[in-house]
Amino acid sequence: MSQYWSKLVHGLTPYVPGEQPKLQKLIKLNTNENPYPPSPKVLEAIAGATSADLRLYPDPGSDRLREVIAAYYDVTPQQVFVGNSSDEVLAHTFQALLKHDQPLLFPDITYSFYPVYCGLYGIDYQTVALDAQFQINVDDYQQANGAIIFPNPNAPTGCVLSLKQIEQLLQQHPASVVVVDEAYVDFGAETAISLVHRYPNLLVVQTLSKSRSLAGLRVGLAVGHADLIEGLNRVKNSFNSYPLDRLASAGAIAAFEDQAYFEHTCKAVIGTRNTLTHGLQALGFEVLPSSANFVFTRHPAYDAATLAQGLREQQIIVRHFRLPRIEQFLRISVGTDAECAALLDGLARLLGT
Amino acid sequence: MSQYWSKLVHGLTPYVPGEQPKLQKLIKLNTNENPYPPSPKVLEAIAGATSADLRLYPDPGSDRLREVIAAYYDVTPQQVFVGNSSDEVLAHTFQALLKHDQPLLFPDITYSFYPVYCGLYGIDYQTVALDAQFQINVDDYQQANGAIIFPNPNAPTGCVLSLKQIEQLLQQHPASVVVVDEAYVDFGAETAISLVHRYPNLLVVQTLSKSRSLAGLRVGLAVGHADLIEGLNRVKNSFNSYPLDRLASAGAIAAFEDQAYFEHTCKAVIGTRNTLTHGLQALGFEVLPSSANFVFTRHPAYDAATLAQGLREQQIIVRHFRLPRIEQFLRISVGTDAECAALLDGLARLLGT
Repeated sequence: MSQYWSKLVHGLTPYVPGEQPKLQKLIKLNTNENPYPPSPKVLEAIAGATSADLRLYPDPGSDRLREVIAAYYDVTPQQVFVGNSSDEVLAHTFQALLKHDQPLLFPDITYSFYPVYCGLYGIDYQTVALDAQFQINVDDYQQANGAIIFPNPNAPTGCVLSLKQIEQLLQQHPASVVVVDEAYVDFGAETAISLVHRYPNLLVVQTLSKSRSLAGLRVGLAVGHADLIEGLNRVKNSFNSYPLDRLASAGAIAAFEDQAYFEHTCKAVIGTRNTLTHGLQALGFEVLPSSANFVFTRHPAYDAATLAQGLREQQIIVRHFRLPRIEQFLRISVGTDAECAALLDGLARLLGT
Repeated sequence: MSQYWSKLVHGLTPYVPGEQPKLQKLIKLNTNENPYPPSPKVLEAIAGATSADLRLYPDPGSDRLREVIAAYYDVTPQQVFVGNSSDEVLAHTFQALLKHDQPLLFPDITYSFYPVYCGLYGIDYQTVALDAQFQINVDDYQQANGAIIFPNPNAPTGCVLSLKQIEQLLQQHPASVVVVDEAYVDFGAETAISLVHRYPNLLVVQTLSKSRSLAGLRVGLAVGHADLIEGLNRVKNSFNSYPLDRLASAGAIAAFEDQAYFEHTCKAVIGTRNTLTHGLQALGFEVLPSSANFVFTRHPAYDAATLAQGLREQQIIVRHFRLPRIEQFLRISVGTDAECAALLDGLARLLGT
C-alpha cells in the first residue's frame, strides 16, 4: 500500500498465471503450452526480421499480419484486430466493449482473468453457473446483461458449445456484445468466425500461444464486425500505438502461412489427448470431454491437491485451482506422448496401482 | 459509433503517431528513430533466442532483464519495472499512479500522448505553460496537484531541466508522484535515477527505442521506489501477465550489456545534431537548445507547414504539429550525417538560398 497509488490500485486482485519454474528437466504440464516447437518457417521469418531495421518502429496497424489473418478466415482486414497476446486483446475488449449499465455475464468456472479485468476497468459482472456436468447452458444466460463472454472450449473444463448453441445465444442477445474466447479452438472445436458476417454483436478472440506454439512470442487477435474492431482500435491507439514488435509480426505471419505444420501438430496433440484420456480413465479418473490441449480430471478416491503435490515431487507439474466446485480437479496440459506416459506412470505410483 | 461500445470509447481521442510510410528511399526524420542499427550483440542475442523455446511462455516477471537494468543503474530489481514499450509503461503509470482527486499537471507543450492517457483513464489534468523561451519553469508547478509528469528532455522542444531543478520540484511536492519521462535522456541530459534513493515519490521512465536503436522491438522501463513499482505491477498483472516476449527480453538484455556500442552511437548522434543545428542556423532558422535526438526549429520568414510539404516533395519527411504556440516549428530527427546534409540542401532549395 502506498499514498502514491491511484485508488483503483488498492482494490486490485491481480491474475496469477501458472507457475513458470526456472528449473530444467521438469515435465511441465501446467500452462497449456504446445509440446511441439513453432514451425521452422516461423523461426526463419524471425531470423529474416532480425536486422538493422529493428531501429525503426513497426507498422502501427500491423497491416500485413491483419491481411494474412483476414485471408485465412475469409474476412476483411477491417474485421481483424491484433495485439501483444490475447490477454492484451481481451483487456482492450473488456474496456472498449464490455462495460455497460447492465452486468457482464460469464460462467462461474472459466478463465480466471475475466473477473480481474472487471476489477481493472470497474465492470459490474455476474457469473452464471455451469450445469452439474460442468457444461455451459445457453438458456441460463437469459437475464439482463450488458454483454457476455465465455471461452470455447471453456477453460479449465475443455468442454465445448456447438456453433448452433452459439448462434442461439447471439440471437437471444442482439443488443449485447458476445465474445467467444477461442484460445483452444484449434484442438477440436469449431471457430465461430463464420458467424461474424451475420452477427454484428459477435467478437471472436484467438491466440497464437497454443495451437501455433508461440506462447513466447505474444500474439493475439480478434475478429468481428468492423464497428467492434474500430472500438478496439480507439482504445489501442489511446494505450500503445505499436503493440506488436517487428519480430512478433514476422513470426505470426509465417505461422498463419504454414498450414501443413499447423494441422500436423494439432493432430498430434489431439492424438496424445485421446491416449492420455484413456490412460487416466484406466486409473479410475473421471475426465471431462475435452476439445482443448488439456484435460480436466478428478479421481473419486484421491484428493487433487495431494496428487498435484505427489506429482511435483516426481518433477511433474500440473495445475490445481483451489476454487469452489473444482478443487478436486487437476488440469493437465497435453504434452508429448512420452511426457503423458511419464505422467500416467507418476499417477499410478501415487495410486499404488 | 456503435451501440456495442462502452461509453468511454465514444469520447476517446486516440494518439496519432508519426507517419510510418511504406515507401522505400525516403529520408525519414519524423519519428526520432536512431539512424544507427542496434548493437550486433543485440541481433546475436535475438538469434540465440529464436528457438524451439518460443513454444514456452516467457518469464512473467522478466527477472533477468530487470536484474541487468538494476545493476546498470545501481538499484535493486524491485525498483525496476519493464513493459512492451515505454508507451505501455506510461499507460500503466497513468492508471496506477497518476489518478488522484487533484489534477495531474504537465506542460502545455509536451508529449501529446499524455492527454490521451488522461482520456483513457478519466484523469483530471491541468497544463502548465512553458515560458516564452519554451522552458519548463519549476516554480509554475506550485499549485494544487495530484501528480506531475514531464519529459526530460522535453518533447518536442528538446530542452532540459537540471537535476537540481528536478530535485527542487520533488521537494516542493512530497505528496505527489513526479514522473520524469526520459525517452531522450541519453543524448545529453542527466538521468534522475540517482534521486530515487532519496525521493520515494519519483518515477523515472525510459525506452530502448531511441538511444538503443530498438524502436522495432518495443521495450520500456521505469525505475523508482519499490512501492511505486509494486503499484505498476498490480496493474500489469491485471492486464497482461507476460508483456515482454522472449525475443524482446533477450535483445534488451544484450543492449544494456553493450555499453561501448551504446556510447559510440549516442556520441555520433550528438555530433550530427550539432552539425545540423549550425547548418539550420546558417539558413536563418532559430533552433531551441536540444539535448535529444531531434531539433525543434522555426524560420522567421517561412511557414512551417509549407516547408514540411516542400521537404516531402523532395522525399524528406519531418514532423509538423498543428498545435497552438508551436505551429511554426518543425521537429527534425537527427539522422546520419548524409541524411542531415540532404535535409539542409532541401531546405536551402526551399529558401532559395
